[in-house]
Amino acid sequence: MKPSADSRSDYFWFTQMSTKFQDNDIYGHLNNNVHSQFIDNAVNLFLHQEGGLDMANGPIIGLIVNSGCDYFKELGWPEHQNIDIGVRVNKIGRSSVQYAAALFAEGDEAAAAQGHFTHVWIDRESRDAVEIPAALRQAMESVLPKND
Amino acid sequence: MKPSADSRSDYFWFTQMSTKFQDNDIYGHLNNNVHSQFIDNAVNLFLHQEGGLDMANGPIIGLIVNSGCDYFKELGWPEHQNIDIGVRVNKIGRSSVQYAAALFAEGDEAAAAQGHFTHVWIDRESRDAVEIPAALRQAMESVLPKND
Amino acid sequence: MKPSADSRSDYFWFTQMSTKFQDNDIYGHLNNNVHSQFIDNAVNLFLHQEGGLDMANGPIIGLIVNSGCDYFKELGWPEHQNIDIGVRVNKIGRSSVQYAAALFAEGDEAAAAQGHFTHVWIDRESRDAVEIPAALRQAMESVLPKND
Amino acid sequence: MKPSADSRSDYFWFTQMSTKFQDNDIYGHLNNNVHSQFIDNAVNLFLHQEGGLDMANGPIIGLIVNSGCDYFKELGWPEHQNIDIGVRVNKIGRSSVQYAAALFAEGDEAAAAQGHFTHVWIDRESRDAVEIPAALRQAMESVLPKND
Repeated sequence: MKPSADSRSDYFWFTQMSTKFQDNDIYGHLNNNVHSQFIDNAVNLFLHQEGGLDMANGPIIGLIVNSGCDYFKELGWPEHQNIDIGVRVNKIGRSSVQYAAALFAEGDEAAAAQGHFTHVWIDRESRDAVEIPAALRQAMESVLPKND
Repeated sequence: MKPSADSRSDYFWFTQMSTKFQDNDIYGHLNNNVHSQFIDNAVNLFLHQEGGLDMANGPIIGLIVNSGCDYFKELGWPEHQNIDIGVRVNKIGRSSVQYAAALFAEGDEAAAAQGHFTHVWIDRESRDAVEIPAALRQAMESVLPKND
Repeated sequence: MKPSADSRSDYFWFTQMSTKFQDNDIYGHLNNNVHSQFIDNAVNLFLHQEGGLDMANGPIIGLIVNSGCDYFKELGWPEHQNIDIGVRVNKIGRSSVQYAAALFAEGDEAAAAQGHFTHVWIDRESRDAVEIPAALRQAMESVLPKND
Repeated sequence: MKPSADSRSDYFWFTQMSTKFQDNDIYGHLNNNVHSQFIDNAVNLFLHQEGGLDMANGPIIGLIVNSGCDYFKELGWPEHQNIDIGVRVNKIGRSSVQYAAALFAEGDEAAAAQGHFTHVWIDRESRDAVEIPAALRQAMESVLPKND
């Protein structure tokens, strides 16, 4: 039951991030934690730009409760100085949401890696779970796959 | 089917790592990619110390093909300046192995986060999958749960 | 006018930090930005532990206006899994202070690298320079070289 | 003798790098080590693209022996998602070279931070200092200020 690589058309919002030589590890390729950082950052950038999320001062925060990633192709600096990251939402609940995101080398149709993680939204002060606010929910729904 | 936190007795080799204020993110706690770095580093340190793995120059390298993590309790600097990381092996195949590792706050019996990842061992030059060498396999077997 | 390496006796407060294989760069040694992170973190840990600095919520913050570092000996993982960092203060003004800090391999008397940086203390909200509060100043004075 | 911020016209080669929310520190701005990473990376990208430097496998490596940076304006995510980095060379010797590089917010003429560092070029195996090869030297000379 080996997973297969997604393609660009499986994602509905894209951003691009640059790599640094410091992102390579001892084996000469992007260390796997760079993938996680890109995925986490792409989703939060999406939520900021499309849903108005204010990570620094907003009343709610998204707490990651689990995450996972499949890796298909090694990426590295300087071969891959810019990486495209696609974002979608897999499912939305009352206070939790699961995102998926994938890294694409420029020119590649197939993902080099694809990951997912779940946010539980909580009140910044009380730390209690909260209902996902309308503006964020609307942004999330805009990147849900249709007819799924 | 929410996962529950492992305890220290579920792991069979331990190391300790220090946190930095730069590991905290915008929410004031360790960013989730720090957990991944600690888990990946703990396993490789174990393989180096117990199985003789030479990441810089050895003939084989462990390629991560998938990873996952569950988070139970937020960690942060300076409250948690040192984190204990426990390592075990879940299963060993011919050329692949799945590890599990967990982060523990000092004094805590329950894991703050627990993750797993799978290495496929390949030849550094040809990139072909190779059988796990005896010294590494012996180290891995030493942290397999008994009677499982 | 090549600088020479300081020794441990040039510093008056010490902490220890662990390295990870991800801290190594493409050349197999700790990337130079790791030194900066360790230096910055060691000074802030000192200010927190000895002067009560609350980085997350305190009314003032230390803004770095300049920094510099000299490198004498390469450090790397796994040869150097723990690094000792020594801290001192070079000079204290009304609202600014220059620190020095150095990295020592375990067992070495001579610094592998030594750096310095200057904090200007500002109000967290107004961003105006403020006088260094008594508790922080007292901590800083405790690591000033005598008879200098 | 406070330094003043350089302008874009003080630099002769430019690249752009993206920031991540994980680059922000506890104070909500880019941690100062991110500046160092960007500067180090920009210079090496320049040497790779313009001088053919092969960091992974080339016969020589550039060892940083000192570095310094002045900071003028705070940068942060998501306000500054892309940073322009300008590169120049201050002076070239037989085997050593001092670079300068600066970070510019998009639309800003004045540097947010400017740094410098010195490479001593050594043989990858013997670790002896070597004369800077012609292709690298030519690239370096192309970003030396004229009539200075």
